[in-house]
Amino acid sequence: MATKRVREILSWYRSDNPGTLTNLSRLLNSGELAGTGKLVILPVDQGFEHGPARSFAPNPGGYDPRYHIELAIDSGCNAYAAPLGFLEAVAADYAGEIPLILKLNNHDVLQDEKDPLGAITAGVEDALRLGCAAIGYTIYPGTLERRLQYEQLQKLTLEAKRVGLAVVVWAYPRGGALSKPGETGVDVTAYAAQIAAQLGAHIIKIKLSTEHIEQAEAKKAYEKYNIPVSTLTERVRHMVQAAFNGRRIVIFSGGATKEDANAVLDEARAIRDGGGFGSIIGRNAFQRPREDALKLLGDMMKIYKGKL
Amino acid sequence: MATKRVREILSWYRSDNPGTLTNLSRLLNSGELAGTGKLVILPVDQGFEHGPARSFAPNPGGYDPRYHIELAIDSGCNAYAAPLGFLEAVAADYAGEIPLILKLNNHDVLQDEKDPLGAITAGVEDALRLGCAAIGYTIYPGTLERRLQYEQLQKLTLEAKRVGLAVVVWAYPRGGALSKPGETGVDVTAYAAQIAAQLGAHIIKIKLSTEHIEQAEAKKAYEKYNIPVSTLTERVRHMVQAAFNGRRIVIFSGGATKEDANAVLDEARAIRDGGGFGSIIGRNAFQRPREDALKLLGDMMKIYKGKL
Amino acid sequence: MATKRVREILSWYRSDNPGTLTNLSRLLNSGELAGTGKLVILPVDQGFEHGPARSFAPNPGGYDPRYHIELAIDSGCNAYAAPLGFLEAVAADYAGEIPLILKLNNHDVLQDEKDPLGAITAGVEDALRLGCAAIGYTIYPGTLERRLQYEQLQKLTLEAKRVGLAVVVWAYPRGGALSKPGETGVDVTAYAAQIAAQLGAHIIKIKLSTEHIEQAEAKKAYEKYNIPVSTLTERVRHMVQAAFNGRRIVIFSGGATKEDANAVLDEARAIRDGGGFGSIIGRNAFQRPREDALKLLGDMMKIYKGKL
Amino acid sequence: MATKRVREILSWYRSDNPGTLTNLSRLLNSGELAGTGKLVILPVDQGFEHGPARSFAPNPGGYDPRYHIELAIDSGCNAYAAPLGFLEAVAADYAGEIPLILKLNNHDVLQDEKDPLGAITAGVEDALRLGCAAIGYTIYPGTLERRLQYEQLQKLTLEAKRVGLAVVVWAYPRGGALSKPGETGVDVTAYAAQIAAQLGAHIIKIKLSTEHIEQAEAKKAYEKYNIPVSTLTERVRHMVQAAFNGRRIVIFSGGATKEDANAVLDEARAIRDGGGFGSIIGRNAFQRPREDALKLLGDMMKIYKGKL
Amino acid sequence: MATKRVREILSWYRSDNPGTLTNLSRLLNSGELAGTGKLVILPVDQGFEHGPARSFAPNPGGYDPRYHIELAIDSGCNAYAAPLGFLEAVAADYAGEIPLILKLNNHDVLQDEKDPLGAITAGVEDALRLGCAAIGYTIYPGTLERRLQYEQLQKLTLEAKRVGLAVVVWAYPRGGALSKPGETGVDVTAYAAQIAAQLGAHIIKIKLSTEHIEQAEAKKAYEKYNIPVSTLTERVRHMVQAAFNGRRIVIFSGGATKEDANAVLDEARAIRDGGGFGSIIGRNAFQRPREDALKLLGDMMKIYKGKL
Repeated sequence: MATKRVREILSWYRSDNPGTLTNLSRLLNSGELAGTGKLVILPVDQGFEHGPARSFAPNPGGYDPRYHIELAIDSGCNAYAAPLGFLEAVAADYAGEIPLILKLNNHDVLQDEKDPLGAITAGVEDALRLGCAAIGYTIYPGTLERRLQYEQLQKLTLEAKRVGLAVVVWAYPRGGALSKPGETGVDVTAYAAQIAAQLGAHIIKIKLSTEHIEQAEAKKAYEKYNIPVSTLTERVRHMVQAAFNGRRIVIFSGGATKEDANAVLDEARAIRDGGGFGSIIGRNAFQRPREDALKLLGDMMKIYKGKL
Repeated sequence: MATKRVREILSWYRSDNPGTLTNLSRLLNSGELAGTGKLVILPVDQGFEHGPARSFAPNPGGYDPRYHIELAIDSGCNAYAAPLGFLEAVAADYAGEIPLILKLNNHDVLQDEKDPLGAITAGVEDALRLGCAAIGYTIYPGTLERRLQYEQLQKLTLEAKRVGLAVVVWAYPRGGALSKPGETGVDVTAYAAQIAAQLGAHIIKIKLSTEHIEQAEAKKAYEKYNIPVSTLTERVRHMVQAAFNGRRIVIFSGGATKEDANAVLDEARAIRDGGGFGSIIGRNAFQRPREDALKLLGDMMKIYKGKL
Repeated sequence: MATKRVREILSWYRSDNPGTLTNLSRLLNSGELAGTGKLVILPVDQGFEHGPARSFAPNPGGYDPRYHIELAIDSGCNAYAAPLGFLEAVAADYAGEIPLILKLNNHDVLQDEKDPLGAITAGVEDALRLGCAAIGYTIYPGTLERRLQYEQLQKLTLEAKRVGLAVVVWAYPRGGALSKPGETGVDVTAYAAQIAAQLGAHIIKIKLSTEHIEQAEAKKAYEKYNIPVSTLTERVRHMVQAAFNGRRIVIFSGGATKEDANAVLDEARAIRDGGGFGSIIGRNAFQRPREDALKLLGDMMKIYKGKL
Repeated sequence: MATKRVREILSWYRSDNPGTLTNLSRLLNSGELAGTGKLVILPVDQGFEHGPARSFAPNPGGYDPRYHIELAIDSGCNAYAAPLGFLEAVAADYAGEIPLILKLNNHDVLQDEKDPLGAITAGVEDALRLGCAAIGYTIYPGTLERRLQYEQLQKLTLEAKRVGLAVVVWAYPRGGALSKPGETGVDVTAYAAQIAAQLGAHIIKIKLSTEHIEQAEAKKAYEKYNIPVSTLTERVRHMVQAAFNGRRIVIFSGGATKEDANAVLDEARAIRDGGGFGSIIGRNAFQRPREDALKLLGDMMKIYKGKL
Repeated sequence: MATKRVREILSWYRSDNPGTLTNLSRLLNSGELAGTGKLVILPVDQGFEHGPARSFAPNPGGYDPRYHIELAIDSGCNAYAAPLGFLEAVAADYAGEIPLILKLNNHDVLQDEKDPLGAITAGVEDALRLGCAAIGYTIYPGTLERRLQYEQLQKLTLEAKRVGLAVVVWAYPRGGALSKPGETGVDVTAYAAQIAAQLGAHIIKIKLSTEHIEQAEAKKAYEKYNIPVSTLTERVRHMVQAAFNGRRIVIFSGGATKEDANAVLDEARAIRDGGGFGSIIGRNAFQRPREDALKLLGDMMKIYKGKL
């Protein structure tokens, strides 16, 4: 039976049909954090995003698509997210063992553009035939072609909701209009979270932000109204606020691999304390030896349960 | 039973099917101004258009999507307009309490282009599943890509009318071909109203204009025929004339927040005296403390009822 | 019963289905010129093309969409042509009183480009639901984007013919590849008429041309074969020849308002004497006082009937 | 009953459905050359391609669309090819008298680009409703936008074959990547024939080529393997080889009008002797006086029957 | 009955429907290598890619489309791959004699761009009507328009899998972002294999790579983790690893014709020893005299069976 917290979260999505609510419920009721309202998700799209050697040579087991879904299952993640090929390679053999998120667009770095723009690499029909609980899509607010992305997402979102899937949006500000620090600036990151929420995302994935404020007009507002953004916890809280004041699930990505597992855990604590809903942690998990990864993921889950 | 005035207004739209007439009727028969033929609408798309902090920090209750629809209901607005995410967050919980307008395109300022161009962020099917009375769409006459906008609007309008929804068009002249004063010049604003009307809008939202006349050919006509445009009231009257001589509903936007509520009320009086159909007032409402906003909206409605 | 001349004209369009033939017949059998094979059509798209004040301030009754259709009916025009908004505003109230032509694309001058390109502002389905007899579409041969226009027209034409509507094509050479005099040069105008005919137009609207010959290769042909184009009547005859040697209906536009009504009437005589099928006359009609316009239109019809 | 030769030719197209085979059979079994496996086709798209005066002033009867189909019928051509307008003007009156080929794209010279690109001016559905046996489409290999053309052709070809129509491809190398002599160079022309064949054309129309070899890599092959291309007959033979070694129908266009009819006949002899399948001859036919054209076409047919 | 190895290979594709599994099985169970899990495929798209003379003059029998499929059948290849025209010319006459792969996009060199981009030249429906077992599509990772290619492939792949076809992807890194050696660099080639696998390819065709490492970030990984790539066999093994650690079929192309057949055979040995799944060998087969080609293909098959 659903916990009170899961029911509360589902109550924020009452515009969705029971099919989508069921899939949201699957995401919230799977793995070690089932029923807590918190999520730890394992995403593995680096093979496409950075190439296979950069992604899997640190821990070569990861060349095999079975490695990741097994890691996600064994560590008790809420879900496993990947592009079409990786999911096709495992969906039948592990059917029903963990909710799947099919990443519908992907970007490679064979041309490393200033304004990244992914390509659609799978569709909603693929998500259905593979038994997925949700689709995933990355937008890059700030890029020249963000409109194309928003419109692709709009069509995919409408289609997904019609057939009862949930929608997870990766919202990563990028592009020539922003300074490098601006890409993770607190104002820009909050803006990206807001856009993803307004586009109809059920779950929003953003990066952890810095104190930097990018836009002059925004700076005036942050200063005039004394919005507290000096600590990571405060910034997490601000992001949750920016995403409909806590009525949308906001999770945070882990970024590049950190040698020191404690740095990752400290971030999880800040996410928890700021009211964030959890982590989506890829390289920091699958690029570590399996035992280290299981330990790290287990510790993160303990943190989210308030036990570490 | 419908008032004589509402029946008169509906008689201008006899090309529409009963479904659309019903939704127009819902807009005209809701809230404090029900039956008067006047409208005050609360729109909240600033989160997408300007970012969350600039929009909601002045009155942080507004981070929560419930705040706005409650403000619209409690103040007696005719309708509440917002992008997909904000409506999805409230449509089920407040179903039937106030007519909704789903804003189908939106524009962010992470790249602040000279020629703005929004993206489609929701569709007609979304408007139907959320129980909306109308769709909203912004055109920017004067921009390079206005044709794309007109053609997007054409497709959405056809689809909306087919399924019995009303169409509200935000017509905001912008872009490199216009001088900054030209964007609110009386000739350009009237031209935008005419374009929106010819594109099949049921309700046209424009900005209040200035005495400035932008186009040389237009200037000749204004001078030769002594078109009176020196007062705000005259310019409102001219806009109503430009929109099929009063046979299309034209409402006016409030613009940036004004400290002095009286300035807002004076504009409402000019709109009323010029034969305008009302106001669509966002930041001036939701960025004020709730009590101030209720007072201001209430006063505006009194003005439209001729009681202030 | 159809006159011999109307039957003859309809015999040129035997590839069309009875639905389209019926609508062509409606156009030819309406108004003062019914049965003569001649047409005078009132088009009012200037509100979109030039803005409301430039269009309607000379005769402010024209701000009201009812003004024009009443003028067209009362003067005995064969048809009334306008964009979506103007037709939606009158189609129900005047249903069946005069054949309507829905103009499917329109162009504004808020950016006055060298190479004009309109936007699609209505569709074939709109024409059907409004009870129209025909669709209208403007091509600008000579412009960079003429291909886009031809292909839009191709799709709309196929759709219109499938559902039994007639197709009226405005063929106005324009654009950077042509000199200003070239836009109305006799060779270029004849070329535009040919293109419209080959694209499947039932009725072709062109401008009256001048003696100017634009293209070097064409000049050789005009000189070698002594094609007579020195008088307006000869040029009209050449246009009719260029449009399948008289087996397609070619009508001529009136252009900008002329103070002197006699200039307009002289043009009508040249059109008649050159074998043209009539006039499509907008500004010269609706920008005059109503009584003057009725007189002018009446006189034109007398000319086409050989009575003036 | 089909001749042995026609059966042999049809055996090359066994991937096609009986509908398409029937239409190919109609093309091969019509007119003076019926059953011989040779074709002479009259195409009249110059009105669109070059304008009406340049096309029809030399023989003004040609302004009338009936002129051409009558010429094609009376001279015993296998088929008549033209754009939409010309076919619509005659298809009903001459129904069943000669196979028709609807030219689906066309190009005008009001902007004479280096890289020509036609527009789609009719569709497969038009070909069906007009009773055509085949569609025609022009590709310009070598141009910047050849991909767009190949993809338009791919869609039209698939649709045509589905509904039992034959596909005729005009393959004319052009564009900025080629030198002027290269456009008719033997290597480039053979390449164009190969591309058309690989794209699924049933009948390929190319120009007669010259000895010029355009591409350095190709030159090496022609020299190393001593491919004989010094006479027109040899080059025709090479083209037939390039189009699946004789298992696709390749016909040759007549080009600009030649004063001397013998030059045209000499070309026909070279086509015949090189194993070509015939001619598609427009201006050389319809720009001559009717009697001269009938004589010329008749002589060509005698040549293809080996009687001249 | 399927061999154990074929059943093992099919087990990697359990997300596919029985229709696609059946076609994969046909590819693995045809010809000399049936049941071994190895493949030798004959592809003939050079006529489109390089022109007919460069492709077929070395062995003129190849102008005839029957030549190639007979060579493929007689040599015992697993499949024959070609563009639409070549398959249409033989599919009925050789129906059922060898699995066919329809190449859906093709590129010509009439404009030899730095960033190649093919055009879609056939569709999934064509593959079905011609009785093919699979579709083929070429992506050029590294080019400007790779996104267009990925998205075309995505749509075609979804459609193919829905109707039970297999998908073969040619993954050839190219384009302005890469140095010339980079196009076959080991990192870039592995990246291309990964991308093809993530896009859902069942069979991936890549080129043999060199020791060159193109991308700085990748170089760090190859060095840090001592990935062995100094011999051809090691690089083949790395490619197989990069394509889901051996759980996707990776085959290698033969490249330009080599005079010395032994060089081709040595490559086959390296492919076999590195765990590759076979070869797709065009010019080295069809540009040799038929007997030499049969000998070479036979020897390659012996190598894959471990008998040479």
